[in-house]
Amino acid sequence: MVAPSIRVAPSAANRALNLLRTVQYTHPPSCPCHSNPNHHHHHRTPTLADHVRRHMATPVDPSRQKEYAFEMAASSIRFGPGATKEVGMDFANMQAKRVCIVTDQNVSKLDAMKQAVEGLSREGIEFTVFDKVRVEPKDYSVKEAIAFAKPYNPDAFLAVGGGSVIDTAKLMNLYTVYPEADFLDFVNAPLGKGLPVERKLKPLVAVPTTAGTGSETTGTAIFDLVSKKAKTGIAHRNLKPTLGICDPLNTRTMPSAVHASSGLDVLCHSLESWTAIPYNERTPRPTNPINRPAYQGANPISDIFSLQALRDTVKYLPRAVKDPDDFEAQSKMLLAATLAGVGFGNAGVHLCHGMSYPISSQNPGYKHAGYDVEHPIIPHGVSVAVTAPAVFRFTAASNPDRHLAAAEAFGVDISNVKRESAGEVLGEAITKFLAELGDQPRGLKDLGFKSSDIDSLVEGTIPQKRVLMLAPNLNEELEVEKIELRGLLEQSMDY
Amino acid sequence: MVAPSIRVAPSAANRALNLLRTVQYTHPPSCPCHSNPNHHHHHRTPTLADHVRRHMATPVDPSRQKEYAFEMAASSIRFGPGATKEVGMDFANMQAKRVCIVTDQNVSKLDAMKQAVEGLSREGIEFTVFDKVRVEPKDYSVKEAIAFAKPYNPDAFLAVGGGSVIDTAKLMNLYTVYPEADFLDFVNAPLGKGLPVERKLKPLVAVPTTAGTGSETTGTAIFDLVSKKAKTGIAHRNLKPTLGICDPLNTRTMPSAVHASSGLDVLCHSLESWTAIPYNERTPRPTNPINRPAYQGANPISDIFSLQALRDTVKYLPRAVKDPDDFEAQSKMLLAATLAGVGFGNAGVHLCHGMSYPISSQNPGYKHAGYDVEHPIIPHGVSVAVTAPAVFRFTAASNPDRHLAAAEAFGVDISNVKRESAGEVLGEAITKFLAELGDQPRGLKDLGFKSSDIDSLVEGTIPQKRVLMLAPNLNEELEVEKIELRGLLEQSMDY
Repeated sequence: MVAPSIRVAPSAANRALNLLRTVQYTHPPSCPCHSNPNHHHHHRTPTLADHVRRHMATPVDPSRQKEYAFEMAASSIRFGPGATKEVGMDFANMQAKRVCIVTDQNVSKLDAMKQAVEGLSREGIEFTVFDKVRVEPKDYSVKEAIAFAKPYNPDAFLAVGGGSVIDTAKLMNLYTVYPEADFLDFVNAPLGKGLPVERKLKPLVAVPTTAGTGSETTGTAIFDLVSKKAKTGIAHRNLKPTLGICDPLNTRTMPSAVHASSGLDVLCHSLESWTAIPYNERTPRPTNPINRPAYQGANPISDIFSLQALRDTVKYLPRAVKDPDDFEAQSKMLLAATLAGVGFGNAGVHLCHGMSYPISSQNPGYKHAGYDVEHPIIPHGVSVAVTAPAVFRFTAASNPDRHLAAAEAFGVDISNVKRESAGEVLGEAITKFLAELGDQPRGLKDLGFKSSDIDSLVEGTIPQKRVLMLAPNLNEELEVEKIELRGLLEQSMDY
Repeated sequence: MVAPSIRVAPSAANRALNLLRTVQYTHPPSCPCHSNPNHHHHHRTPTLADHVRRHMATPVDPSRQKEYAFEMAASSIRFGPGATKEVGMDFANMQAKRVCIVTDQNVSKLDAMKQAVEGLSREGIEFTVFDKVRVEPKDYSVKEAIAFAKPYNPDAFLAVGGGSVIDTAKLMNLYTVYPEADFLDFVNAPLGKGLPVERKLKPLVAVPTTAGTGSETTGTAIFDLVSKKAKTGIAHRNLKPTLGICDPLNTRTMPSAVHASSGLDVLCHSLESWTAIPYNERTPRPTNPINRPAYQGANPISDIFSLQALRDTVKYLPRAVKDPDDFEAQSKMLLAATLAGVGFGNAGVHLCHGMSYPISSQNPGYKHAGYDVEHPIIPHGVSVAVTAPAVFRFTAASNPDRHLAAAEAFGVDISNVKRESAGEVLGEAITKFLAELGDQPRGLKDLGFKSSDIDSLVEGTIPQKRVLMLAPNLNEELEVEKIELRGLLEQSMDY
């Protein structure tokens, strides 16, 4: 073991770090230098490199310093059947005079929109409606929405719809407040510049009509950057809505297949944020708090949300999918989606989401049952969940206790399960859950992918740095990382 | 049982309500009209009056309509040892140019203040310091603070201290933004007018130096209204700080006795909010969402915070009290205080807090051990916890399952405990916890109260409507309520 008093000069230390990065050197648990008062478990076995890093007299390189704090931010959440009708009063209370309502062609015909429009009209508030949000937004559809909002120059936004609508509204808000900005300024690095959002945005009230993305509580907006053939987005906590109105009457209209796939998104939000690397293992430590990412790794507050959302999803999603009249299950799923939103919105997601983006965009032609669309579609939740069994088998070694707790949330009796089997047991529990939910692909093959597609899926995953950096157990060396991703995709072909 | 189709004309219904209010009529569990998808348990047995109310064709009286939604709002929370030094950058990021720092004579000498002042200076931000906050603020001390802030007209506030400091800063912020308001305009009814806070307040960053009040995350500010001899306050979610910086380095200086009493405040925040009536049993339903109180009753999100805070407090408070070097326990208690703050800040507290106000202000001369002050003092946490055993024995009938879950959090094996014994078991667990913590009074007698003081304590509790309305199992009829409060205080004399 390395003595706690070790001191290495910076240059030697740098070399040591490079040499030792892959050494899985286990130190005795009594080593006092790794006690971590803010987190229940170590997520990965500290390496010799960790020792060297922590005991250095002077920091080697600021970008290698680990984080020491976390920040929790979430939109205010109002939850109740019928609460949508209060939204006019909310805008009146905030003295809004000119509201831009954002929705899509389907939602614009639903009761949620009727309630919203009536609410604003009753208060005599001027508004306009943008109803051309594209489901699974592309950069050009987002730019079209921004071009609509800029000349109207609203003093507040109201999003009524699923994640695509709420995400688009966030971006309309952002670029109306930054009219001079280039579109790539705020897009996540390395595809964009990843600048922090320093200005105060206009109030945005989000009324979700699906129980999935949790976008009503997060500072994340996702879209396709067509020229780069990559799904990316903008993430900063200042992007989050002012208020999310979660009205379970608004999700009653979801078809069963949409309940299922949006619920699988919730499942993976909670599983991935619960198992993400702990915030204090993330590098670099930001030099200004505004640069602390929203996706900061698991922390003691996000943990509470993520685990509760996981338990609720396991309990209520099958009921919500099977019985369109089970209003209790639908309500619980809407709440679970929001709780998971707070969890992953502050902790992040990792491998399932990272690989889902190329899976969706490289769709060989699969059209998911129950989706009434003309073009091929792998719903986001389906593309996320399809790799979940392989992912959590892989990540379990980083923190067996957490993976066992997750398995327990699926109803597995873990009292006699060895820690080494945590990944196997959780992977099996997820596989069983997906099979029993019904109408889910049993692997990438069912989606039409072939072994020859795997290289391209790996290449499409690599740019998702923002989420991959939170993946436990994933190697930092690019070539090793590619091998590991290929392994996960191979194991996800067929199960 | 009352048939679900019952219809009663308004006037007859009103009479029926009055007649039936105390009838504890239990309906069969299959009655479909009481299914409640958003809450795990009924907190009290629905009465015949509930049936009548729910099945009426037209509402009797809007003030009797039950709530149907809840709203969760909390300050952003940053947690990490050393995070105080980031505060200057936070104000720079929000473009603040003129900051009013609020603190007290003790805290002004501590490292937390040094870090805050250095942080602002480093960013070249102009600031002034108000260091005259009174511990346990009185209306005149608050008015003095407001008179200081108004002419300075800051564009942001920074509170560094315990609950008294943070509460005072909230009020300075409020009345600087409402310079024309009368002091009583926003004070809780019935003592004040209880107006909602409609204007946007200035940014307020709170840096707690105790682990107790959770004030860094709530919209509540408590003070003594001297002319009315009553402890009251102002509560509205728009009063909440923008950001709470929870830095466990700042609570290391707390003496052991302060750890104990502030920790008991956390214990009761979590127990009371966990057992408060459910939000959808509260009346009246607000006609405008801005009138929805912050103390709205237990709800599925506050529950998560309250129960986690309870578990952490039971685990870490004894360690924090006994070992001043147990930094892990101190850190966990700071986090628990904040979690409980989110819980009770959105669900409310009830009987322990309601009775604590007259207990503190009618102190017969008790001076708590370990408090280095010249005047008699019953610390807030001590005055709250002293009635806890009696209170939870009394409230258990409203929801035995929740009280059993609380007992389990104290380490009680509840597997063979009958639901009828929930109150007894929880009361005993709390008594044992207080005794083992050490240096706690074993009832009101130890504080110097006599049986002849009880009437006066009851009279001092009655005006605490805002919290009493959330007390489960408490009778609505004033005379019965007084008898019940007297009973609780009698049982709290000596145990």
